[in-house]
Amino acid sequence: MQNRTITAPKGFLAAGIRAGIKDSGRPDLGLIVCPDGATAAAVFTTNKISAAPVHISSKHITSRRIFAVVVNSGNANACTGSQGIKDAVAMCRQVAACANSHWPDHKVQPSQVLVASTGVIGHHLPMKQVLEGIRIAWKGLSSSARAGLAFATAIMTTDTRPKQAVRTCQIAGQRVTIAGTVKGAGMIGPHMATTLCLLTTDCAIPKHLLARALRQAINQTINRLTVDGLQSTNDTAIIMASGLAVKRPIAPGKGFERFCLTLLEICDDLLRQMALDAEGATRMFKVVVKGAATKPDAALAARAVANYPLVKCAIHGGDPNWGRIICAVGSIGVRLDPRRLSCRLDQIYVFRNGAPCRFDRKAASSVIRRPFHTITVDLGVGSHTDFCYGVDLSEEYVQVNAEYHT
Amino acid sequence: MQNRTITAPKGFLAAGIRAGIKDSGRPDLGLIVCPDGATAAAVFTTNKISAAPVHISSKHITSRRIFAVVVNSGNANACTGSQGIKDAVAMCRQVAACANSHWPDHKVQPSQVLVASTGVIGHHLPMKQVLEGIRIAWKGLSSSARAGLAFATAIMTTDTRPKQAVRTCQIAGQRVTIAGTVKGAGMIGPHMATTLCLLTTDCAIPKHLLARALRQAINQTINRLTVDGLQSTNDTAIIMASGLAVKRPIAPGKGFERFCLTLLEICDDLLRQMALDAEGATRMFKVVVKGAATKPDAALAARAVANYPLVKCAIHGGDPNWGRIICAVGSIGVRLDPRRLSCRLDQIYVFRNGAPCRFDRKAASSVIRRPFHTITVDLGVGSHTDFCYGVDLSEEYVQVNAEYHT
Repeated sequence: MQNRTITAPKGFLAAGIRAGIKDSGRPDLGLIVCPDGATAAAVFTTNKISAAPVHISSKHITSRRIFAVVVNSGNANACTGSQGIKDAVAMCRQVAACANSHWPDHKVQPSQVLVASTGVIGHHLPMKQVLEGIRIAWKGLSSSARAGLAFATAIMTTDTRPKQAVRTCQIAGQRVTIAGTVKGAGMIGPHMATTLCLLTTDCAIPKHLLARALRQAINQTINRLTVDGLQSTNDTAIIMASGLAVKRPIAPGKGFERFCLTLLEICDDLLRQMALDAEGATRMFKVVVKGAATKPDAALAARAVANYPLVKCAIHGGDPNWGRIICAVGSIGVRLDPRRLSCRLDQIYVFRNGAPCRFDRKAASSVIRRPFHTITVDLGVGSHTDFCYGVDLSEEYVQVNAEYHT
Repeated sequence: MQNRTITAPKGFLAAGIRAGIKDSGRPDLGLIVCPDGATAAAVFTTNKISAAPVHISSKHITSRRIFAVVVNSGNANACTGSQGIKDAVAMCRQVAACANSHWPDHKVQPSQVLVASTGVIGHHLPMKQVLEGIRIAWKGLSSSARAGLAFATAIMTTDTRPKQAVRTCQIAGQRVTIAGTVKGAGMIGPHMATTLCLLTTDCAIPKHLLARALRQAINQTINRLTVDGLQSTNDTAIIMASGLAVKRPIAPGKGFERFCLTLLEICDDLLRQMALDAEGATRMFKVVVKGAATKPDAALAARAVANYPLVKCAIHGGDPNWGRIICAVGSIGVRLDPRRLSCRLDQIYVFRNGAPCRFDRKAASSVIRRPFHTITVDLGVGSHTDFCYGVDLSEEYVQVNAEYHT
């Protein structure tokens, strides 16, 4: 069977185990290791209350070579004060200690290990379980598809299924593989490197190009998804490049463009998996805002629609209640011309030049009931466009989030 | 029985009837009439897509005397283009025609009638039913408590009960009465004169003072409530003063202050009734943000908490999941000091100076389960404070709003 996990690119080992962080006893600790060291790049949440692992990883990412990423679910290690920082550092130290006891020659520093956490905010990590878990996970490291899947499973919180994507492309006559996994069932908002996204590749690529490719890909895909409207304290996307598939690092030009495009495809694939597995979500939609006076106006209006609970409920009910879309756009403060304002659901115009259209309500309802549809709003005042993705709001979202903590 | 409706102040007649606008056959058209003419003031939505009745009433409110307000539910007459404007004008004309046929001496102009609509957006009003309904309502006008209740019932949409408040105060040795009714089960957001709020008083008060009192009262109460985060297209608050209880109009000073305070009490009472009858809401909460660098920062942070679905769900579940409060505050872009940030639920500190507190989880849960509790967040960077009100998010909210249209 083809390996479609993060261990598909050459040079990566993974593991995912039950460390006992989650009360449920489900897998909650994962490791990705690149024994020869990887070039790495990352983007982090811009929430001002970033979690301890975000603090630590944003320092460690400046290291020239990264050997491993350790991730736990079930506890975000956020809002945990100075103890939280110590705990995140201790996780990196433990990984480095395991590495050095197995490969004494490597001399892995704790600063060459990245750490990410996801789960409930405001609780100290059970460090005994975490440190012992790292030791056990290390022993289980493997390049098998099973190990990659175990990692993807161990980072889940309220996700109902692991989310993985893999693509290959030819760069300079060499076959390059990029793979990724993501978790993100709740606290998903725009302007961020959402939740946790781990990517691996065997491409050889300089750090600054890898960082640029990651930023572009995340910004066009995962950063565009909004489920709850606000970004979490722990959002982290990391990519590691082992360099084993290509003889010489790629440079700006066609090869790099192909790499960027492939990475974008992976992130888009992960975005869709994440959206459709968002808490209680049954369908996703894209909001495109055209005719805006500025690009920020277009972005703001798109997000206002995608975050408006009344729009999300209407989509859940398969109800073409477009008045709520117009209400959201009108309320958010962007420039618009009420006499030129238009709105369509996929190709069906429901509101045009400030007046309601006659339209086939059944057809519009069936558009909305699709797993994916596009809402297009034209503000009628300029030439700027932006977009984002949203999901419907269901009773299940409320159930999951009223009961998550206890 | 004491009259506790909008007909309690001297000089007002009301009616509420079934005009056939709602498919359900429920009451959907109401009239308030002040036969001798009233001094009036109003505040309207700042949504850029304001509804036709908002356009018309914001012109008519400049008239020196207002004789009547006509309100329909079941159809917002919003996003209805030029036809919608014509329909709103036709409603005012019909009321003026009724008035002049009964009181030929009054010579009521259509511009001395206000109009408000609430309900689904984007549909033309069934004008035959509306105009005939106004005629029938006019015939049923009465100063009885029953008529006041009929009006309060006729303006309801997904509200489950009419909302009314009445207070009296002594001004210059005279007993002055203020009364109000409000509807507002959905599309409730901040920065507005929410949904529909109709107030009557028999106080004699100059128009500019009445306008100031109304702005202040709405801004401190109903404008602070957020259910869905965005303001509707139709939000309107109107107060009419018949002047029959006081010999001379009140002037700035003690009498005016007492009037303002009483009006504030009424609006606060209506706010609480509205919050607890919001779609699916089972409890309400206040968010106070202190220690902000600026007042707008404090307001923004308070609204971010009150609108965050994850906070609203946790409150619905009685779960003291305070990490979501901190996440919202950190995400919204206001200045804060992570090392001085604190949060409490009523008097129970859950997070203090950037670190989690040990607290009695059961006690915290029971605070949250109260019909009303206060979340206080200290940003730790300044001396500014602001507040708002929110409600929990329940499965019922989703059910109601997935099925509202069809």
